[in-house]
Amino acid sequence: MRRRAERAIYDERIGEILRSGLVAHVAVQTAEGPVVLPMAYGVDQEDLYLHGALGNALLKAAVGHDICVTVTIIDGLVIARSAFHNSMNYRSVVVRGTARRVDDHEKVHALRLISDHVVETWRFGRAPTASEMRATAVLAVALTEASAKVRSGDPIDEPSDVELDHWAGVVPIATVFGPPQPAADLRAGIEAATSYER
Amino acid sequence: MRRRAERAIYDERIGEILRSGLVAHVAVQTAEGPVVLPMAYGVDQEDLYLHGALGNALLKAAVGHDICVTVTIIDGLVIARSAFHNSMNYRSVVVRGTARRVDDHEKVHALRLISDHVVETWRFGRAPTASEMRATAVLAVALTEASAKVRSGDPIDEPSDVELDHWAGVVPIATVFGPPQPAADLRAGIEAATSYER
Repeated sequence: MRRRAERAIYDERIGEILRSGLVAHVAVQTAEGPVVLPMAYGVDQEDLYLHGALGNALLKAAVGHDICVTVTIIDGLVIARSAFHNSMNYRSVVVRGTARRVDDHEKVHALRLISDHVVETWRFGRAPTASEMRATAVLAVALTEASAKVRSGDPIDEPSDVELDHWAGVVPIATVFGPPQPAADLRAGIEAATSYER
Repeated sequence: MRRRAERAIYDERIGEILRSGLVAHVAVQTAEGPVVLPMAYGVDQEDLYLHGALGNALLKAAVGHDICVTVTIIDGLVIARSAFHNSMNYRSVVVRGTARRVDDHEKVHALRLISDHVVETWRFGRAPTASEMRATAVLAVALTEASAKVRSGDPIDEPSDVELDHWAGVVPIATVFGPPQPAADLRAGIEAATSYER
């Protein structure tokens, strides 16, 4: 596995947000303007990994170019006494950098991270074949240019508005995982891994 | 309020996804590559609206230029018998177009749509002042170039993999709203609007 001589300065909050997010929004530039699409991702201490089919247009536009990858978790609606001060509580990380093509041993490492990002699945399934590996493109973007932004807590109203008869507070928002639903073609007697329950 | 002579062809599924999303991921191009950030938004039948402070760098980079706005809802993790066929169930809309600055009556219309997007708040709070309106930038992007992408249902495994002893199915994911939490400085006896309960 590749190791850079200079290790990225790693903010623990950035890592926590990246590990908690479900999908990344990946932006690339094209001749017809920017494109941003949701993608699965994986992270280690140094890189954020993306994957897709070899023909994936977004990944083809990304490789060797500057891209932006943003992971956002929404924690609540912040309702102020005035619409002007409404907001959201959220945690987000923005990663900017040049997308690098990933091959060989690092590719397996990256695919395992992506596969295990939300729930651990890699070791419970069939390993990829050589032709599946060849059919999959994997890109990395270094976490050296990552920044986090967090808003939490109550609305910040104008002092004069606090006297008004309008409610103010936060409506919490959470992402909830339901019990695993077996596929229609699942053979009898096969149980879901306990890691699939969240 | 502005009305275009040619009305956008409006796919009801696009509208449903745009109305269900919490935030949009907005991509612009800069001299240092693309930038994508999460933003609150509002929609009507013709436009998607964004707002921010007058000095907001993303909105300043967007106005008059091609942008991409993506709204994504994650519905589940799709766990196949092989990592290669893992996926997610999701609904997303991608809107591409030139960001147009919004003023006057349409600005109030847009701010109300943004304010009421997730829960209705506009009519329960203090209306914006003239100086707050001047301090707020509002942009619109037409829904004429919007497209929706949806994945739902079971994993699609290789036929030969269905015979393996690996579990396959879907872990459902939902966004859940908790009961409204009053701000620490909320005066006694002020109740949350029933629309804040979701």
